[in-house]
Amino acid sequence: MPQEITSGINLIDPPLPRDEAKPHEACGIFGVCDVEDAAQLAFLGLFAQQHRGQEAAGIVTSDGERLYRRAKSGQVREVFRLPEQMRALGGRHAIGHTRYSTTGLSVESNIQPILVNTHLGSVALAHNGNLTNARQLRRRLEAEGAIFQTGTDSEVVLHLLARSRAATFAERITEALSQITGAYSLVLLFRDKLLAARDPHGFKPLCLGRTPQGRSVVASESCAFDIIGAQYIRDVEPGELLLIDENGVDSINFAASPRRAHCVFEYIYFSRPDSKIFGENVDRTRRKLGRNLALERPAEADITLPVPDSSNTAALGYARETGIRYELGLIRNHYIGRTFIHPEQMERDFSVRLKFNVVEGVLHDKRVVLVDDSIVRGTTLRQLVNLLREKGASEIHIRISSPPVRYPCFYGMDFPDPEELAANRNDPEGLCAYLGADSVEYMSVQALSESLYQPAEHFCMACFTGEYPTDIPDRELGLGKEDLQGD
Amino acid sequence: MPQEITSGINLIDPPLPRDEAKPHEACGIFGVCDVEDAAQLAFLGLFAQQHRGQEAAGIVTSDGERLYRRAKSGQVREVFRLPEQMRALGGRHAIGHTRYSTTGLSVESNIQPILVNTHLGSVALAHNGNLTNARQLRRRLEAEGAIFQTGTDSEVVLHLLARSRAATFAERITEALSQITGAYSLVLLFRDKLLAARDPHGFKPLCLGRTPQGRSVVASESCAFDIIGAQYIRDVEPGELLLIDENGVDSINFAASPRRAHCVFEYIYFSRPDSKIFGENVDRTRRKLGRNLALERPAEADITLPVPDSSNTAALGYARETGIRYELGLIRNHYIGRTFIHPEQMERDFSVRLKFNVVEGVLHDKRVVLVDDSIVRGTTLRQLVNLLREKGASEIHIRISSPPVRYPCFYGMDFPDPEELAANRNDPEGLCAYLGADSVEYMSVQALSESLYQPAEHFCMACFTGEYPTDIPDRELGLGKEDLQGD
Amino acid sequence: MPQEITSGINLIDPPLPRDEAKPHEACGIFGVCDVEDAAQLAFLGLFAQQHRGQEAAGIVTSDGERLYRRAKSGQVREVFRLPEQMRALGGRHAIGHTRYSTTGLSVESNIQPILVNTHLGSVALAHNGNLTNARQLRRRLEAEGAIFQTGTDSEVVLHLLARSRAATFAERITEALSQITGAYSLVLLFRDKLLAARDPHGFKPLCLGRTPQGRSVVASESCAFDIIGAQYIRDVEPGELLLIDENGVDSINFAASPRRAHCVFEYIYFSRPDSKIFGENVDRTRRKLGRNLALERPAEADITLPVPDSSNTAALGYARETGIRYELGLIRNHYIGRTFIHPEQMERDFSVRLKFNVVEGVLHDKRVVLVDDSIVRGTTLRQLVNLLREKGASEIHIRISSPPVRYPCFYGMDFPDPEELAANRNDPEGLCAYLGADSVEYMSVQALSESLYQPAEHFCMACFTGEYPTDIPDRELGLGKEDLQGD
Amino acid sequence: MPQEITSGINLIDPPLPRDEAKPHEACGIFGVCDVEDAAQLAFLGLFAQQHRGQEAAGIVTSDGERLYRRAKSGQVREVFRLPEQMRALGGRHAIGHTRYSTTGLSVESNIQPILVNTHLGSVALAHNGNLTNARQLRRRLEAEGAIFQTGTDSEVVLHLLARSRAATFAERITEALSQITGAYSLVLLFRDKLLAARDPHGFKPLCLGRTPQGRSVVASESCAFDIIGAQYIRDVEPGELLLIDENGVDSINFAASPRRAHCVFEYIYFSRPDSKIFGENVDRTRRKLGRNLALERPAEADITLPVPDSSNTAALGYARETGIRYELGLIRNHYIGRTFIHPEQMERDFSVRLKFNVVEGVLHDKRVVLVDDSIVRGTTLRQLVNLLREKGASEIHIRISSPPVRYPCFYGMDFPDPEELAANRNDPEGLCAYLGADSVEYMSVQALSESLYQPAEHFCMACFTGEYPTDIPDRELGLGKEDLQGD
Repeated sequence: MPQEITSGINLIDPPLPRDEAKPHEACGIFGVCDVEDAAQLAFLGLFAQQHRGQEAAGIVTSDGERLYRRAKSGQVREVFRLPEQMRALGGRHAIGHTRYSTTGLSVESNIQPILVNTHLGSVALAHNGNLTNARQLRRRLEAEGAIFQTGTDSEVVLHLLARSRAATFAERITEALSQITGAYSLVLLFRDKLLAARDPHGFKPLCLGRTPQGRSVVASESCAFDIIGAQYIRDVEPGELLLIDENGVDSINFAASPRRAHCVFEYIYFSRPDSKIFGENVDRTRRKLGRNLALERPAEADITLPVPDSSNTAALGYARETGIRYELGLIRNHYIGRTFIHPEQMERDFSVRLKFNVVEGVLHDKRVVLVDDSIVRGTTLRQLVNLLREKGASEIHIRISSPPVRYPCFYGMDFPDPEELAANRNDPEGLCAYLGADSVEYMSVQALSESLYQPAEHFCMACFTGEYPTDIPDRELGLGKEDLQGD
Repeated sequence: MPQEITSGINLIDPPLPRDEAKPHEACGIFGVCDVEDAAQLAFLGLFAQQHRGQEAAGIVTSDGERLYRRAKSGQVREVFRLPEQMRALGGRHAIGHTRYSTTGLSVESNIQPILVNTHLGSVALAHNGNLTNARQLRRRLEAEGAIFQTGTDSEVVLHLLARSRAATFAERITEALSQITGAYSLVLLFRDKLLAARDPHGFKPLCLGRTPQGRSVVASESCAFDIIGAQYIRDVEPGELLLIDENGVDSINFAASPRRAHCVFEYIYFSRPDSKIFGENVDRTRRKLGRNLALERPAEADITLPVPDSSNTAALGYARETGIRYELGLIRNHYIGRTFIHPEQMERDFSVRLKFNVVEGVLHDKRVVLVDDSIVRGTTLRQLVNLLREKGASEIHIRISSPPVRYPCFYGMDFPDPEELAANRNDPEGLCAYLGADSVEYMSVQALSESLYQPAEHFCMACFTGEYPTDIPDRELGLGKEDLQGD
Repeated sequence: MPQEITSGINLIDPPLPRDEAKPHEACGIFGVCDVEDAAQLAFLGLFAQQHRGQEAAGIVTSDGERLYRRAKSGQVREVFRLPEQMRALGGRHAIGHTRYSTTGLSVESNIQPILVNTHLGSVALAHNGNLTNARQLRRRLEAEGAIFQTGTDSEVVLHLLARSRAATFAERITEALSQITGAYSLVLLFRDKLLAARDPHGFKPLCLGRTPQGRSVVASESCAFDIIGAQYIRDVEPGELLLIDENGVDSINFAASPRRAHCVFEYIYFSRPDSKIFGENVDRTRRKLGRNLALERPAEADITLPVPDSSNTAALGYARETGIRYELGLIRNHYIGRTFIHPEQMERDFSVRLKFNVVEGVLHDKRVVLVDDSIVRGTTLRQLVNLLREKGASEIHIRISSPPVRYPCFYGMDFPDPEELAANRNDPEGLCAYLGADSVEYMSVQALSESLYQPAEHFCMACFTGEYPTDIPDRELGLGKEDLQGD
Repeated sequence: MPQEITSGINLIDPPLPRDEAKPHEACGIFGVCDVEDAAQLAFLGLFAQQHRGQEAAGIVTSDGERLYRRAKSGQVREVFRLPEQMRALGGRHAIGHTRYSTTGLSVESNIQPILVNTHLGSVALAHNGNLTNARQLRRRLEAEGAIFQTGTDSEVVLHLLARSRAATFAERITEALSQITGAYSLVLLFRDKLLAARDPHGFKPLCLGRTPQGRSVVASESCAFDIIGAQYIRDVEPGELLLIDENGVDSINFAASPRRAHCVFEYIYFSRPDSKIFGENVDRTRRKLGRNLALERPAEADITLPVPDSSNTAALGYARETGIRYELGLIRNHYIGRTFIHPEQMERDFSVRLKFNVVEGVLHDKRVVLVDDSIVRGTTLRQLVNLLREKGASEIHIRISSPPVRYPCFYGMDFPDPEELAANRNDPEGLCAYLGADSVEYMSVQALSESLYQPAEHFCMACFTGEYPTDIPDRELGLGKEDLQGD
């Protein structure tokens, strides 16, 4: 795959020091139809979903005749910094995308929304998820003479759409979607309409809202509705396609949903606690995770300490259930971003100090139950434990509000190789020793299942269980993060 | 005063949408002597103190022969973004400064550290605080032929130093400091030494630490020591001057301390909870504020809700004391920064939505005690109350962990004009009505005093009481924020 | 066609104040194979050809496995400004492109070289010229399901290549080229080889050179060889395809040349006088134009004045032939570039003053023969005449070293609409009056023909005669500059 | 002296590959009073004088109450690129400066105009020339307690002005100017007036013009008047001070002119040929230099070749006088600017190829007389001779339209150390051999003197003769380019 060299400023930036403590999603997507200031609403909708992808952002608008695009590396507020940049995005329809690139060097041509010309006119697409047969399709399409300009699996969708011979517009879309497998929540923008679709398993969230003026809006998470004063209406259903234009919304059930397979990690870590996804408030589920963790994995301790901010809610549930005092003992520095300082230049535990500091008095001589949502490599957590000890914690009991991550995700989460996962590298005692804790305990799959407000079989837990809800056609083709990243 | 036009990029940025809910401090300062990677330590020390000033940052280093400076508008990680920029800051000594400019348009020539040439050689200065006789001194100095290149009160110090005829270096510094009044914590960098000084009242924090290699480091807050693995040793005393070079630290008591007058707002709002200032952990004092607020101003409620993040600790204290459950009901978006969207372009409560979102389930039909650290104008709080009501809160009782702010600060805090302060514009019922709350209650000065771990007379509470611990010589000269900003 | 919004900096730049006195070409292309520092040689080759396109520049390199691209708005030295930017362009093969965008707003996705993925692997293309059936082909390809990501006619070539079913690589290329008509000099870069091709009419120049180390290099003009110390070998022949790899050069005659149709404007204006194109030194032909102009259109005058720099050589020829002293009377400001000052903001003759100034003493009371290479709109020339009069010229006789431009060019030159051309808007007396000259005379087509060192029928003179050497299939489809610009 | 680190972009730019073939001046200055669009006129006035300094540019304006400044590294059109940047420079008065920094790393704080505050209000200053007692004055001022913020000698003027105790404004200025010695053409901007002054020897040019609306304008060269449609009125006289405000112009003769000492290099090289300086057209003098060179140093040759562009005029004079045909044989690439390619990375004669190319046919088998205006190090000329030989020149006779440069300049020209000067390193034969020419001859001081339209004793020729028209007080203090650069 060719490697496009990005703009000068990006080039000389070192790669983002990524938070190796956590899996990397993913994207936030957004779409709105027939509103004033469509670009501005898209900006806000992406801003609210910034946590879903901080490396690049893009918006495409349509004024009914032409489509306008701006998409760059950087956080939303950096990419759309100048009034001129917003004014240039004219029109009443817009889609947007935030991206957490899964390659080290972010490649500008891969930034979404993608915008192309076809015999159907101009089309833009933004995609959250990962297709499992993109490489197969791409090979077939290339063999048929298609040329690809990005390294994303998402571009495949546009080729399929352009090639469809079906009679009607809706049939063409349906035909295209019927060929792709895997995880996808999509928005597409045409000259005069907006489309939103969700894969038949419903891996990734996608919901429908309504602005105060009664216009339709779609977003990955409902927090994108709150920021613009819109109301959450319902989820886009698995296998559902919405066609949205000035006359309203049409729904097409383009595929039967074999089973639901919502990504359970959305509740564990990705989504904001103030969002509603998969039909349920994230906060409510996350608290129940904390409570069930407490029931299953109690600890003798004086204080409950979350690893802020992602574990705050689960820790609150844990503290409530156990009665072990919830404490604010770690301060997180929120000014972190692209910075040039490499951990290797600094003392061993530098990277954790850049992000966290301990409130000294709170910990002194205390037995701490430290609640975290997940462990990936464990390196940051190990440094954190060390920091807590240094500041006087007498015992440290780690409790994880999810099961051990052991298997790769083919649907869009970016874990390291399985052999780098802490849970695979160590047996339980080894892990406890590695982390330097007095005890380390994970929630079981069973307890996780009981924490959900829907039947457990509606979720994908493959990263914990290795049981994938779909075939992975590209698996033998070496579906790899280098060249077929969906988002 | 001339107005220097800053670089193109800054020019076309609109002014930062400032958090009008809070007073604006101020600066973080930092200094380190005789270490490898002095610039890098200064970067980290400023990064940890980013909350003290987000509009500009600067570092000056010395390699024993020359001084090197880089100082620009922007957050620390934006100003020092490239490895080349750090490498150019050579040498083993460094001082740094973060700044919250108090004028709308940030003026590049005012960004600190200031660097000048004198018969003593090159000198750089970084200053936190506000001098109360700078305008008088400036008039006198200009009449004597001095030329000023910045609009800061800090430059006065350098002129006094350059003009001193005293025999020894220490005497010159002492002579210069003896002429200035008001609030100042200062670091000065010379070719071969670092100076740190604190005004005789000790308005602003300044503490001394030691790196793992035994070198001296000074900073406004001790969190700057934690990030570089240094230890807090003690505060720089009011009226104390430290001369730090490769041979160690000399202490000079350059002025008797008439009384201490520590800025109590540092405990209420400015400092990080994980810092130790004025000899005490901020977290410990802030919790006690919460507890005493609970005792003095109880409320009938189901949940205690902090306005994150600055009120988290006080709210925790309030919740503990009252037994009213501490809840995470507001999510703060930390990606905010320079953004172009003006509140006036959006619906009425836009600016609060950009910053906060409500966790819906948590509030529904709940009586809420909303703990905030202070009220300035009250506009954001009013919007927030509205948002909470919209999401279902049945009652909202506001409790403020400080007394009403009524008087201007001449020592470095940037309040709006007294007539714009919420506590001056409304009587208690009026304020409650304005904010849309069911009750609003402030902590009394008495309760505040009892919350401090030092005698209350060691603190400046002038913004609450109007009792200024010093004369304000510039007051009649119209000491104004437009042209004599200290920091 | 969608309109991609370019980067912030470009957006807020006003469009380049274009030199409306001249037609706008076009592009410089460059390719080199199997050399150290391929990107650096490409940089130099583009730098030498900067006059062929100043709005954007791009380079794609190959290291044998991957292709690397950097392409941006701006002059060559602006686009490739940082050592990091060059180092990122690794490998021993490179192609490059400079572009004079023919739309007002330069669109980043249209900047060449284009880089795509096909079943043949990654391919990059740089194109000089304009295809005359690109719109037809694009319609057909889109109907077949192709998706287009640029608005350039050049992308058509890549689609044809990707779709070819021919057996061998060479046959695929040949098959693709056989479908396109019009003007094209192309370089294509594959993982391990470089291709160069020229249309059967040879509209645009393309020549082959050899580096001191014996490697092959291709460029639009031979001045690109001089700057890297390479030797001009020969022209790439009309209808010839070169396949260049580490083993050397293969030549394929992919189409019989029906007749040659070299763009005569290359000799008149576009090419640098120090280049050799179409097998002949530009300087030599341009001087002969001047001499023949003198013979055909003499003038009674005291001094010969070129409009610098493009008319210097022709004026020298004119002066030699007539014996009327060649003078340096106009100084051209070479610092012009993107600048924000709009002519309408300034007095009437501002734009000419920004570019030219008169050497006062030289002109005073002199009868001037002012030699220019061509007239398009005539507005700048009119201002220039005014300026000369103001500075004391007693008579001004304009002599143009080419015939009147009356017809559109479909092969890549960007003239204004025919009705805006000075020669169409005015009869001879009217033109003289409009320009304010004492006389205005053009060279005849006959004299032009006699000035060339090849038979006149080897040249395209359609802009003077309206006789197009090819059909223009897209003509009825409204081939328009808005959406099918070749380069 | 402290070294300020400039903005990131500048930092990572390598130093400009300077044209080591030529001495480096110097600055262009400009001032205008009481006009609409003062900043725009200043922009144009600087743009026309861009050749006098390409490394930085600055403008300060006054709206009668405040002064506004913008000054940055870069060419004029780069520093003032955005409409916002111009609009921010409000008011009807303006001064400007272009700068050729004489240190490798350009230091932002040294960029002029300098803007300071004094008891006289805000003052801005732009300076062309070099003071010869600045170091002495600076030492005295620093001893008196003055603090300096730049490394320029120009700042001394502002200190002297601020310290003057004289009764009237004019007397203060006069008192300040009476203390400085050396070369200076100055413009100063106050809130409500513009000052222009020229040293008593008149080293540097400075002339007075009038806009079409009758307002006064001053500039280094009259070409700055032409671009804005203003008329040249007269030179500012040596020792004259102009006070310009809305009421008109007052002239004060602040010092008797001991003798004139105009920099003869302005005629030889620096000034544009279309300018009038020292009361005479540059073009006229430069042609006479060429004619007298021809008379004194004839050559047997077939063609006269200038080294473009600075030697075009002298070469034309040479050709006229000798009858040896003037030829256009070298093409200069005008797109050069800041570029990262270092000559050492490329073959030996790379840097000359980047700038010049030879028109092949013109030179073949020709005996060439190559006219250049001066030789400094000779390295570029040597490469150029090599290039000419390579392209077929049979003989090369170098003729220099000035005498050998042998002595340092203390008045603002930046030559290399005397031992690096070609004329000092070689005897005549050695120089000819070094350059690879068939003959090399300089003009004599006598012939130079006869070429001037004023008595030779009105000029400074110290760089040729070592006879300095003034004492150089700073000489023993080691006046060095590192820390006392005037401009």
